[in-house]
Amino acid sequence: MRAMKIEELITPAFIVDLLKLKTNINHMQARAGTHGVHLRPHVKTHKTAEIARMQAPTDDAGITVSTLAEARFFRQAGFDDITYAFPITPNKLAAAADLTKQMTHFQILVDQPQTAAAIETFGKTNGVRFSAFLKVDCGYHRAGVDPTTAESVQLVEQIKSSKHIQFKGILTHAGHSYHCRNREDIIAVARQERDVMVKFAARLKQQGIECETVSVGSTPTAVHAPDWQGISEIRPGNYAFFDKFQADVGACTLEQAAATVLTTVVAHYPQHNQMLIDAGALALSKDPGAIHLDEEIIYGAVLGYPFLKIFSISQEHGLITSEAPIVFDNFPVGSLLQIIPNHACLTAALFPKYHVVEKNRVVDEWLPMRGW
Amino acid sequence: MRAMKIEELITPAFIVDLLKLKTNINHMQARAGTHGVHLRPHVKTHKTAEIARMQAPTDDAGITVSTLAEARFFRQAGFDDITYAFPITPNKLAAAADLTKQMTHFQILVDQPQTAAAIETFGKTNGVRFSAFLKVDCGYHRAGVDPTTAESVQLVEQIKSSKHIQFKGILTHAGHSYHCRNREDIIAVARQERDVMVKFAARLKQQGIECETVSVGSTPTAVHAPDWQGISEIRPGNYAFFDKFQADVGACTLEQAAATVLTTVVAHYPQHNQMLIDAGALALSKDPGAIHLDEEIIYGAVLGYPFLKIFSISQEHGLITSEAPIVFDNFPVGSLLQIIPNHACLTAALFPKYHVVEKNRVVDEWLPMRGW
Repeated sequence: MRAMKIEELITPAFIVDLLKLKTNINHMQARAGTHGVHLRPHVKTHKTAEIARMQAPTDDAGITVSTLAEARFFRQAGFDDITYAFPITPNKLAAAADLTKQMTHFQILVDQPQTAAAIETFGKTNGVRFSAFLKVDCGYHRAGVDPTTAESVQLVEQIKSSKHIQFKGILTHAGHSYHCRNREDIIAVARQERDVMVKFAARLKQQGIECETVSVGSTPTAVHAPDWQGISEIRPGNYAFFDKFQADVGACTLEQAAATVLTTVVAHYPQHNQMLIDAGALALSKDPGAIHLDEEIIYGAVLGYPFLKIFSISQEHGLITSEAPIVFDNFPVGSLLQIIPNHACLTAALFPKYHVVEKNRVVDEWLPMRGW
Repeated sequence: MRAMKIEELITPAFIVDLLKLKTNINHMQARAGTHGVHLRPHVKTHKTAEIARMQAPTDDAGITVSTLAEARFFRQAGFDDITYAFPITPNKLAAAADLTKQMTHFQILVDQPQTAAAIETFGKTNGVRFSAFLKVDCGYHRAGVDPTTAESVQLVEQIKSSKHIQFKGILTHAGHSYHCRNREDIIAVARQERDVMVKFAARLKQQGIECETVSVGSTPTAVHAPDWQGISEIRPGNYAFFDKFQADVGACTLEQAAATVLTTVVAHYPQHNQMLIDAGALALSKDPGAIHLDEEIIYGAVLGYPFLKIFSISQEHGLITSEAPIVFDNFPVGSLLQIIPNHACLTAALFPKYHVVEKNRVVDEWLPMRGW
């Protein structure tokens, strides 16, 4: 394609800063290397083969996905070791069986005895042997077994006893790192994430059960964990892009954010000290950001203009205001702004195309996968 | 296609109840007919040719769109009278000029003198005559001119004086009807919307300026306006689907909602009185709903189970709780639930495909357009 100037793009547009993206990816790879832990990036953040290839350069390097449609897309793109990091349900076993047969390594998640029983039945009926992790709750309380209970060990024993499930190990996501306020908070969650998993693996070992893999996740903890002793794998995803939320909780700086939404200043309303932009809820998502840090909801950070606040969004409309009177001459109608989204994963998911930018020029277009 | 049972769908799935959809569409057409006002439906809610055809049966019936990409999509589908109801910017004039040339009627919106000047310049240079509405603020304060000011009339005079703009009339959106609490509130906003526009049209007439069209919008006011005397056109969109927000503000009942998200119960966590479902922020959107009516944020209504609350969503995870202990046996792992979204427009926009359902059977699939 012809290298366009950023100014030639139709707004709203999703822009990926290639240099920042590569820096973020390299930094996490270096961290994983230093600490001797396997990096299995979660590709749900971007859902593109291009970025996944930067994160996992070889087919067997291993990636994490959030849907079966993603698993199929990345398998088609050549990836041959995929963990589907959302608890499987009986109605998805046929699709998971197909992927299990087509790939060298395809792992599913279980945290319910009923589901383990359904997998056993399906496997027996259809002649499939699934590979499964036990999903563990390390304190986030979104999903997973409570690893302090007898039931958690019983479920592992149930899995181990099945001829149609290969037990791969234990897996958790420290999503409560998103409730942190700073680096110190995140380090505390990272320690808890590690300790819960190491302790549970030891408890299983006492029962004669080996965990081939002990897997942890979350970008904030992956950025700040002091060490991963006893952990074999990390699965951060957002770190490729970062965003305002990650900056607010102390996982990155705003300058590291590699994904922005390009928008046009549409109108000035001095009577309300407001400007209209063409990035609304369908371009930014309605993710309110780190609301535990600020009661005021702002839908992203305007790059270079920290005093501008996107205080209201509807489908295609975004409204900007400021504490001080806006100097409208600095933002002419038709001029462009770049917005660092609150939550890059949700924002990226709204765009059928990403524009890849190097030194203010569009050098490539990437097409993410969509749907379920 | 083979008529599937709803239970065969991959979840999360976007389901359109064909009977409810048709009822909603017919009801609004009947209302417009009764009141002698032209219905120009806003198709941004669904972005499908199929639903637009039910709403506007002939090519010249007239529809409203929110993006230029929508305008191109619906022009391709045969629609020949489209209003692009978002203020144009200079960088979009080339695309708008193409549509102007290709269609019998294509209308744009202006509320800035700079933009009117840019249209004049572009039109002169490129030999195009645009058709334009003046966008008016009737109290929502999102976009539009303040119709009580001298500047608002001056802008109309500027438009009228241009050889490259045909002045079509005045247009507003009473988005503040979404801040209402009940039918009476909505009627008050509808009266204000009407009165502001009628008064402004009269003021323009005193200056010798005729408004060919006086256009108002918003589903709540379209549902409850007692009359549209002096108004020529209404542009509601959400009414095709309705949603929890519309039900909460009193514009419909939950039973009228024609769009739901089908989801699977993934896991039970009795220790937290929680259930996990596979509809998260990418299936429901993070629209918080009518938060002015309830401090508690809930991400949609679970059809048939008003006591279940979707209290937390992340990318693919939705968490349900209840005030009373959940009777988990009533919601087995693998069973299906239907969720009426808070905001159907934002939820619909997340799905690459809609499944059309009649009597619990999937009878069709519709493909909405996406992007800008």
